[in-house]
Amino acid sequence: MTFKKFITFEGGEGSGKSTQIKLLAQKIKNFDSVCVTREPGGTKSAEQIRKLLVRGEVDKWSSISELLLLYAARKDHVDNLILPELIKNKWVLCDRFSDSTYVYQGMCGKTPIDTIKKVERLVIGNFKPKITFLIDIDPKIGIKRSKRKENKDIRYENMDMKFHHKVRKSYLKLAKLNKKRFIKIDGTKTISQIENKIWNIVENEYF
Amino acid sequence: MTFKKFITFEGGEGSGKSTQIKLLAQKIKNFDSVCVTREPGGTKSAEQIRKLLVRGEVDKWSSISELLLLYAARKDHVDNLILPELIKNKWVLCDRFSDSTYVYQGMCGKTPIDTIKKVERLVIGNFKPKITFLIDIDPKIGIKRSKRKENKDIRYENMDMKFHHKVRKSYLKLAKLNKKRFIKIDGTKTISQIENKIWNIVENEYF
Repeated sequence: MTFKKFITFEGGEGSGKSTQIKLLAQKIKNFDSVCVTREPGGTKSAEQIRKLLVRGEVDKWSSISELLLLYAARKDHVDNLILPELIKNKWVLCDRFSDSTYVYQGMCGKTPIDTIKKVERLVIGNFKPKITFLIDIDPKIGIKRSKRKENKDIRYENMDMKFHHKVRKSYLKLAKLNKKRFIKIDGTKTISQIENKIWNIVENEYF
Repeated sequence: MTFKKFITFEGGEGSGKSTQIKLLAQKIKNFDSVCVTREPGGTKSAEQIRKLLVRGEVDKWSSISELLLLYAARKDHVDNLILPELIKNKWVLCDRFSDSTYVYQGMCGKTPIDTIKKVERLVIGNFKPKITFLIDIDPKIGIKRSKRKENKDIRYENMDMKFHHKVRKSYLKLAKLNKKRFIKIDGTKTISQIENKIWNIVENEYF
């Protein structure tokens, strides 16, 4: 199931996703209603699960517990925010979605891809974004940016650099496997260069 | 996979499970090491998930999110407490385990039994207690007892009486389907009558 106005942003820590989501939302607002949200979280209950995931020790959860927590939060988010907004014909721009789980817990973690697929099918079926912008950046730059922010939610940032390089490679691989949906954006460009590139794509596709 | 010294206690709210677990543990301690634990929870991380489950509104979680949270907690509990203790040859007495999920979320909830089975197999395989004591009591008595306790964790207690009657019936059905493992105990007897009955069974089986 794909809703045309459901767009996700993916990328490593500090790639600039949240900045670009805000900028895109401002542009769309000139024409249409838009909801900006994020994962893990997005609803009151899912944000409670988020706290369990993004704080604490790097090895706090086993891979399967982490997967179940992520999908418990995702289910709440989809059912109580994303789907209702899409059904009202609003745009939904989401900072991370299922692709993050495939990259962080699957390709770069210890969870077999097949297990993720099984849980995903059971929980949200074939619910996918129409477009996924992958903001690609060298983690050396991304992590530096990310750590500059006042942020308590740094369990993922605290993984080692080897992990973050693997995250980048995995995203690029995932983008290749899903060419129709993924659009790769060079994250080293300036904020307004990226903003314009994204807007050009959205404008061509939707307006 | 079944460990001989893994015993669980099941039953509706206020059936007297935790009282009886403590009494059984005291008796076993005269002979052997014993670990008393509970679900949802039992480990530091799983207790954080417990808080999300047992507090708040009755309809706080969708059935599938609740199932995933329960199994995320259960996985942590099994891997980091129950299994390590059993491997050290300790007894593990657990207040609620997977049967509670089948009863509360499956038979009395909205989660298909087949979905629970799939998630269970994926997460803990075929890990089961050797004996399950079902303390059976009329919910009219149980809920009254349970509400007398100083307790903030009352999301399940707050379900309506029809639900609690269904819980009782479902447990009895589950016990019939798993006759080898389940032992039904009459929860209207006095604390020491129940204590003696449980001890007789354990003594005959293990000592």
